Amino acid sequence: MTPTSNKEHLIGVLGGMGPAATIDFMHKVIELTPAACDQQHIPMMVSSMPDIPDRSAHLLQGGASPLPALLHRLQLLEKAGASCIVIPCNTAHYWFPQLKAATSVAMLNLIDEVVDAACEARFSKVGLLATDATLATGIYQTALEKKGIECVAPDGVMQKAVMDGIYTYKAGDSAKARQGFEAPYCCLQQQQVGAIILGCTEIPLILADEIRKKPACFLDSNRILAQAVVRWYSGKRKIV
Amino acid sequence: MTPTSNKEHLIGVLGGMGPAATIDFMHKVIELTPAACDQQHIPMMVSSMPDIPDRSAHLLQGGASPLPALLHRLQLLEKAGASCIVIPCNTAHYWFPQLKAATSVAMLNLIDEVVDAACEARFSKVGLLATDATLATGIYQTALEKKGIECVAPDGVMQKAVMDGIYTYKAGDSAKARQGFEAPYCCLQQQQVGAIILGCTEIPLILADEIRKKPACFLDSNRILAQAVVRWYSGKRKIV
Repeated sequence: MTPTSNKEHLIGVLGGMGPAATIDFMHKVIELTPAACDQQHIPMMVSSMPDIPDRSAHLLQGGASPLPALLHRLQLLEKAGASCIVIPCNTAHYWFPQLKAATSVAMLNLIDEVVDAACEARFSKVGLLATDATLATGIYQTALEKKGIECVAPDGVMQKAVMDGIYTYKAGDSAKARQGFEAPYCCLQQQQVGAIILGCTEIPLILADEIRKKPACFLDSNRILAQAVVRWYSGKRKIV
Repeated sequence: MTPTSNKEHLIGVLGGMGPAATIDFMHKVIELTPAACDQQHIPMMVSSMPDIPDRSAHLLQGGASPLPALLHRLQLLEKAGASCIVIPCNTAHYWFPQLKAATSVAMLNLIDEVVDAACEARFSKVGLLATDATLATGIYQTALEKKGIECVAPDGVMQKAVMDGIYTYKAGDSAKARQGFEAPYCCLQQQQVGAIILGCTEIPLILADEIRKKPACFLDSNRILAQAVVRWYSGKRKIV
């Protein structure tokens, strides 16, 4: 492969929301790629430039919009030669239509991929752990409803614990974040859901132990996006 | 911060050699950055495009040169606005002079950083675990000798075990890779070295358990490069 032909199949990753979630996504792409040496791995250009205005703060409290920064990273990835761009952040998918409209490059939609996975598993009811902002936009609920899948999310005190846990993790305290997730996670489990959507890419990191023990209980948005990338790339170029 | 001012401090990571080592490097940058939220993390543009001809195969068996692919990635990072470029791969530093000459962007040299760390720790003798190619180029031995530091590396069967371990890890079998490292690692430990240089960015992944138990026994090239990046970035822009 010459550098030129390689560029034709480059995956652009619009990440940094947060940086640890971006690494988790990259790790899952590697893990899911059948490669026997460096050269067989999927080429990625990864923007981990986290100085993007807080998505939740904008949607809920009218802070600065992240859209200009998202468009800036999108253009950088396009210029670098990306032929498929993905965003390992659920909340940022609120701006997916504007981002898609601003580029001619293919994009995979994380929310659609997760909802498709819920359909394929024939779930009639799922739980949803996500940021306040993702819940408020209704992106998951609307897409699931269209497929006839009921969606339950924590509310009140329980959802506050989810939100606190996410920001605690982003601030570097993973043990405290995990502890905070215990109540909302147990509460959703008791509601006879087929699986729980981890609808924020930080949550698979916070609940890593639970996922290891019971992988079938979760729809991990980061893993599902990684699977979609491997599938997309395999279709474009056979992985030996 | 606007997207424009952010670009002034962008770290370019010429990675993918291998992809897991690149992730480990990114992870260490995050870990070493005093950040309380996404926005305070160091912005990075990461090329993880692993289809770069094998560095060892070229240096030892006359395979295709990785230099054109390395220059291509370097240009992509430069175009994306990187103001400091690093390469989390020891063997690739053989081409550091040519890469440095091809760009006006600042670059941090991994080998120099590790040797400086050995000096600061006042070691008079260190062990070196690295690829056959890194050993053959003498980049570490020459730089250490200039500082009056003796360097011992495995040879014969022991070095073959190191090399097999690295390629086994790259092929996805971390347990077998770790097992293969046991003999050369113990052998170096018995030679009264101040510390062992992990002079291949895959080795900190293979010996993760040993490093956790005895961090002072190792000079982890990936962690030292991450420290250099945090230091460089802090000098350019104060991290709050």
